[in-house]
Amino acid sequence: MVVVMQAGAGEERIQTVIDRLVSMGFDVHRSTGATHTILGAVGVRPDFDPRDVELLEGVREVVRITQPYKLASRAFRPEGTVVELGKGVRMGGVEVVVAAGPCAVESEEQIHGIAGRVAKLGARLLRGGAFKPRSSPYSFQGLGEPGLKFLREAADKNGLLVVSEVMDPSQVALLTSYVDVLQVGARNMQNYHLLRALGEVRKPVLLKRGMSATIEELLLSAEYIMSGGNYDVILCERGIRTFETYTRNTLDIAAIPVLQKLSHLPIVADPSHGTGRRDKVAPMARAAVAAGADGLLIEVHHDPDHALSDGAQSLYPDQFAQLMAELRIIAPAVGRRMA
Amino acid sequence: MVVVMQAGAGEERIQTVIDRLVSMGFDVHRSTGATHTILGAVGVRPDFDPRDVELLEGVREVVRITQPYKLASRAFRPEGTVVELGKGVRMGGVEVVVAAGPCAVESEEQIHGIAGRVAKLGARLLRGGAFKPRSSPYSFQGLGEPGLKFLREAADKNGLLVVSEVMDPSQVALLTSYVDVLQVGARNMQNYHLLRALGEVRKPVLLKRGMSATIEELLLSAEYIMSGGNYDVILCERGIRTFETYTRNTLDIAAIPVLQKLSHLPIVADPSHGTGRRDKVAPMARAAVAAGADGLLIEVHHDPDHALSDGAQSLYPDQFAQLMAELRIIAPAVGRRMA
Amino acid sequence: MVVVMQAGAGEERIQTVIDRLVSMGFDVHRSTGATHTILGAVGVRPDFDPRDVELLEGVREVVRITQPYKLASRAFRPEGTVVELGKGVRMGGVEVVVAAGPCAVESEEQIHGIAGRVAKLGARLLRGGAFKPRSSPYSFQGLGEPGLKFLREAADKNGLLVVSEVMDPSQVALLTSYVDVLQVGARNMQNYHLLRALGEVRKPVLLKRGMSATIEELLLSAEYIMSGGNYDVILCERGIRTFETYTRNTLDIAAIPVLQKLSHLPIVADPSHGTGRRDKVAPMARAAVAAGADGLLIEVHHDPDHALSDGAQSLYPDQFAQLMAELRIIAPAVGRRMA
Amino acid sequence: MVVVMQAGAGEERIQTVIDRLVSMGFDVHRSTGATHTILGAVGVRPDFDPRDVELLEGVREVVRITQPYKLASRAFRPEGTVVELGKGVRMGGVEVVVAAGPCAVESEEQIHGIAGRVAKLGARLLRGGAFKPRSSPYSFQGLGEPGLKFLREAADKNGLLVVSEVMDPSQVALLTSYVDVLQVGARNMQNYHLLRALGEVRKPVLLKRGMSATIEELLLSAEYIMSGGNYDVILCERGIRTFETYTRNTLDIAAIPVLQKLSHLPIVADPSHGTGRRDKVAPMARAAVAAGADGLLIEVHHDPDHALSDGAQSLYPDQFAQLMAELRIIAPAVGRRMA
Repeated sequence: MVVVMQAGAGEERIQTVIDRLVSMGFDVHRSTGATHTILGAVGVRPDFDPRDVELLEGVREVVRITQPYKLASRAFRPEGTVVELGKGVRMGGVEVVVAAGPCAVESEEQIHGIAGRVAKLGARLLRGGAFKPRSSPYSFQGLGEPGLKFLREAADKNGLLVVSEVMDPSQVALLTSYVDVLQVGARNMQNYHLLRALGEVRKPVLLKRGMSATIEELLLSAEYIMSGGNYDVILCERGIRTFETYTRNTLDIAAIPVLQKLSHLPIVADPSHGTGRRDKVAPMARAAVAAGADGLLIEVHHDPDHALSDGAQSLYPDQFAQLMAELRIIAPAVGRRMA
Repeated sequence: MVVVMQAGAGEERIQTVIDRLVSMGFDVHRSTGATHTILGAVGVRPDFDPRDVELLEGVREVVRITQPYKLASRAFRPEGTVVELGKGVRMGGVEVVVAAGPCAVESEEQIHGIAGRVAKLGARLLRGGAFKPRSSPYSFQGLGEPGLKFLREAADKNGLLVVSEVMDPSQVALLTSYVDVLQVGARNMQNYHLLRALGEVRKPVLLKRGMSATIEELLLSAEYIMSGGNYDVILCERGIRTFETYTRNTLDIAAIPVLQKLSHLPIVADPSHGTGRRDKVAPMARAAVAAGADGLLIEVHHDPDHALSDGAQSLYPDQFAQLMAELRIIAPAVGRRMA
Repeated sequence: MVVVMQAGAGEERIQTVIDRLVSMGFDVHRSTGATHTILGAVGVRPDFDPRDVELLEGVREVVRITQPYKLASRAFRPEGTVVELGKGVRMGGVEVVVAAGPCAVESEEQIHGIAGRVAKLGARLLRGGAFKPRSSPYSFQGLGEPGLKFLREAADKNGLLVVSEVMDPSQVALLTSYVDVLQVGARNMQNYHLLRALGEVRKPVLLKRGMSATIEELLLSAEYIMSGGNYDVILCERGIRTFETYTRNTLDIAAIPVLQKLSHLPIVADPSHGTGRRDKVAPMARAAVAAGADGLLIEVHHDPDHALSDGAQSLYPDQFAQLMAELRIIAPAVGRRMA
Repeated sequence: MVVVMQAGAGEERIQTVIDRLVSMGFDVHRSTGATHTILGAVGVRPDFDPRDVELLEGVREVVRITQPYKLASRAFRPEGTVVELGKGVRMGGVEVVVAAGPCAVESEEQIHGIAGRVAKLGARLLRGGAFKPRSSPYSFQGLGEPGLKFLREAADKNGLLVVSEVMDPSQVALLTSYVDVLQVGARNMQNYHLLRALGEVRKPVLLKRGMSATIEELLLSAEYIMSGGNYDVILCERGIRTFETYTRNTLDIAAIPVLQKLSHLPIVADPSHGTGRRDKVAPMARAAVAAGADGLLIEVHHDPDHALSDGAQSLYPDQFAQLMAELRIIAPAVGRRMA
């Protein structure tokens, strides 16, 4: 930590700040300049709040140097992490991995139909919610465990893996028994009870960025899971909330290369939630792959007009086919390939 | 719902949209203008997604008319709600109710000391966290149940009520047995499992606005709790995330009068989290009362320099005394009074 | 315009609103539903402020139907606009047009050196500022007219066109005599005096989206220029301001397909200003082309480490060469090609 | 400037960075810690871009220590600035100064009527636009010079001063001859040609914060004016753009105490533009005064229902009277008084 004193801060004040830092357990190195005195404080505790020093008399600015996350940082594994999802599918390798499927599992028939289509078109995972976080208490809340069963069977029948959302610590055991990847939704990115519970399972977790979460906060949430011993975390950019309301969210494509520099974890994009409108999904999916994403989450529905949730952002199977064809052209530009 | 067709949309397209709306269960009233045709669709289901119509060919815009929340809307109780907190303290009445105390309960001694001070200065509730949602897994996470016990005893000894945060459905029973008001933190505003669990208790809930939640989303979360039968919800503005980073959040003072118009529920402000800096707490607390807030949540610590969390935004007891004196001048300007 | 009355609004209030609308010059069609009455008001003036009706007693919501822009809307030219820049270069056609060059013209030698490099690599336009809008009054403000002269000569020598920024109405004549495309910076997007002056010239204008401008506001600013008779407007997405500060701005890639739907004008992206960091420029340039952009603005400097402004976001010539090679792979995925 | 090297950055890299800093003109002080080396660089030029160092190999973070503004900083005049507006009215003194009037001057009769009312109720300045920055080219653009004349006469007749907006450098001379305070609108906060022109006049300038401007950027724009020799700058908070759309903007009340700490310049609030809705103006005006604002800009119209612009956010004279009465109660809480 670097503590910058105000211009002309008197000797007494400087000494008080040094004493305070020492009492907090820091080693302090002083550097006296022409106008400013700078204090280097070594040995910061992970739970230290820089504002405690910032508000001391005579202090102009405090700069934290060590990142608050460690396990999630690129320095922890400079070569990058490849997460094995099962059946030889690897997230973070040369293949751009696509998860496709409906927003919610609606019926056995629906999910089998869609699974068959997306498997043929190159998807590796089947996505679909059995428990739905809905902002209105009056909306369809998902089929629950039967939905998970349909999802698993449809995936197995078509050689796919399963990713589905877990909403509460009480659901972790159930989900773990059905899915290959546990998804944490944007609204739960800072549900620390859930994150801690996921640190104890030994299945990959796909962690979505919260709508108002900074990149650093996303990495801190990954750190929660990893600090429990589960290192198979996949990050997901799904759009942030900004003043622009034409699209549901603003898909922060730049977060993809930023996260790849800061962290060793794989990063996927969800253009369906990121835009909320079917006609914007393909352009943003292409953009994400062109920017270097390791994978995609795409909502596909055999009959979006009658979907029970988020039909408006689901692709028709034909649109998904067209998108996959376009991605096959783009992926080599970034040294990747599609299935 | 009003469906506006594109200028010059042909008869066939209009008919297709009408048929679709009828098949969705709407009664449709058509109004044909010179350039635009407008369709009024009556009988919207609460889980209807307007985007499903918006994407139909020939549709220009869809406007939902009924609000997605009912129990939380002002129309449900035009006269406003006064929540009885216990011991005759009423939130939403003529008195501006102040909850004060440390960010976290740190020890029996600490909480007793602070409780004694704030009670004398006019606080009605003692606030303090026993379970702390911390963005870093390495930070102090609270004392747990012993913290609740200290909090209850300190409050009782000083004639105060207790408000404390509940983070997970599994904690609801425990919290309910110790506190008078259950607080839902900003990060949990859309934790629907928790909201549903709180709908079943019969204690007031203080619901904080999420950092990126719109006013409508806050009311939808209140609706979740109320739809379970618990109508004693208190809304709390605690700052939203914007591009301005000088303050930790941007306290959206205008949300106070806006919520008072849209909803019958009482609304309090939390200037401590809303600014994150001690020297900005008093100005914002005064602003909130001047704008019509029904109450305040203020962090006060007997020794902020050694607080285990959020010391930087905690007032010294003397600053709290000064603030209460200022609020006594301001409250009459809006027809209110302080304790 | 559609005016939705509150549920249960009495006959008298409805009549008052109707009378008011008629006095404002509207034709009013009334549609009485079970709970809500809806009024269709035809004949809105372009300068009408919907809030004037919204605040009337008994009104629940007002929905403007006609877009506030006309000339800039897709309906005005459904087939799309191709802007002829000169020398056969066309923005909005099948070729993705790249403008490259330094942030600021620094010297004759510098601009000639860069022009030679980027021309060989496939750029069609040379970019470079002669007048620089700098947020600090103490920063380098540009070479002025001599800079324009160097820019023109360097472009001509290398078969390039010139795009450069105009900051004030008083500079329009000067710029027009030197450049092929007049650029309006983000900070001037709502400088209406400047927009009006540009409506009177007969050269293409590249209009950058303001940092906090909605897509609709960008189109309204284009409308200002077009209403003066200059229809050759090129829109530019260059990043919006959000809470995320890791990148300088958040490049709103989704704005590209959105604008292509709402407007007939070509749209380019500026990943250099959009990210502010050299290592993020190439990923975002690829993303923009993959999303369908008609062109790119890329800062390239022969010696970014000694650039007088924005060196940190300028590509080295070798990085630009690499990027162009990648774009040649991507463009066919969206039916386009690079020069 | 403090340059923090990456953990484990080798000696060679550190030396390269030091050499580079020296070649940039800095004096460098090195401080070698257990894991990190920190370089203090003294003598930063005002136009220095920290990103140039940030991108060097081995550098982890660069922290600018000196603020980029000097004349606008509190350190420049620790005792604060009181701007003399004329007729003994002083902005920044003990009196909270109110400017009131219509959005736009519409006619001689209108402005005289309003001036008479607001003068009696305690306003000190008459506000009103003669040149209107309108986002649509089809909206009312103001009366021009005749509007200024009406404004001046109406003010003089009622013992008021005049504040009105200047939109372009070409209007500065004209405005200066009619008004007492020159207003710079939010859209022009970074119109540097205009700011520079205003640095040369010797009349107070009221500088509005841009919709997406940080507090630091507002102070940099003030610095532009002051660096030209005009020190009489009044800052104005008028709302920032956030994701919340219920109010037109989010009035950042916390900016008031923040600016008072960072700068010596007076700060006023504009709750009319800050909320865009008449019924929210009074609560936010009260909040601004309670937070310590030196003044207010309030839109008042004798007949808002027929106002040519922004009627929806204009108070009726009776509402303004009521507001002034409330402010008289609040002001003493912050050691101020109303006229």
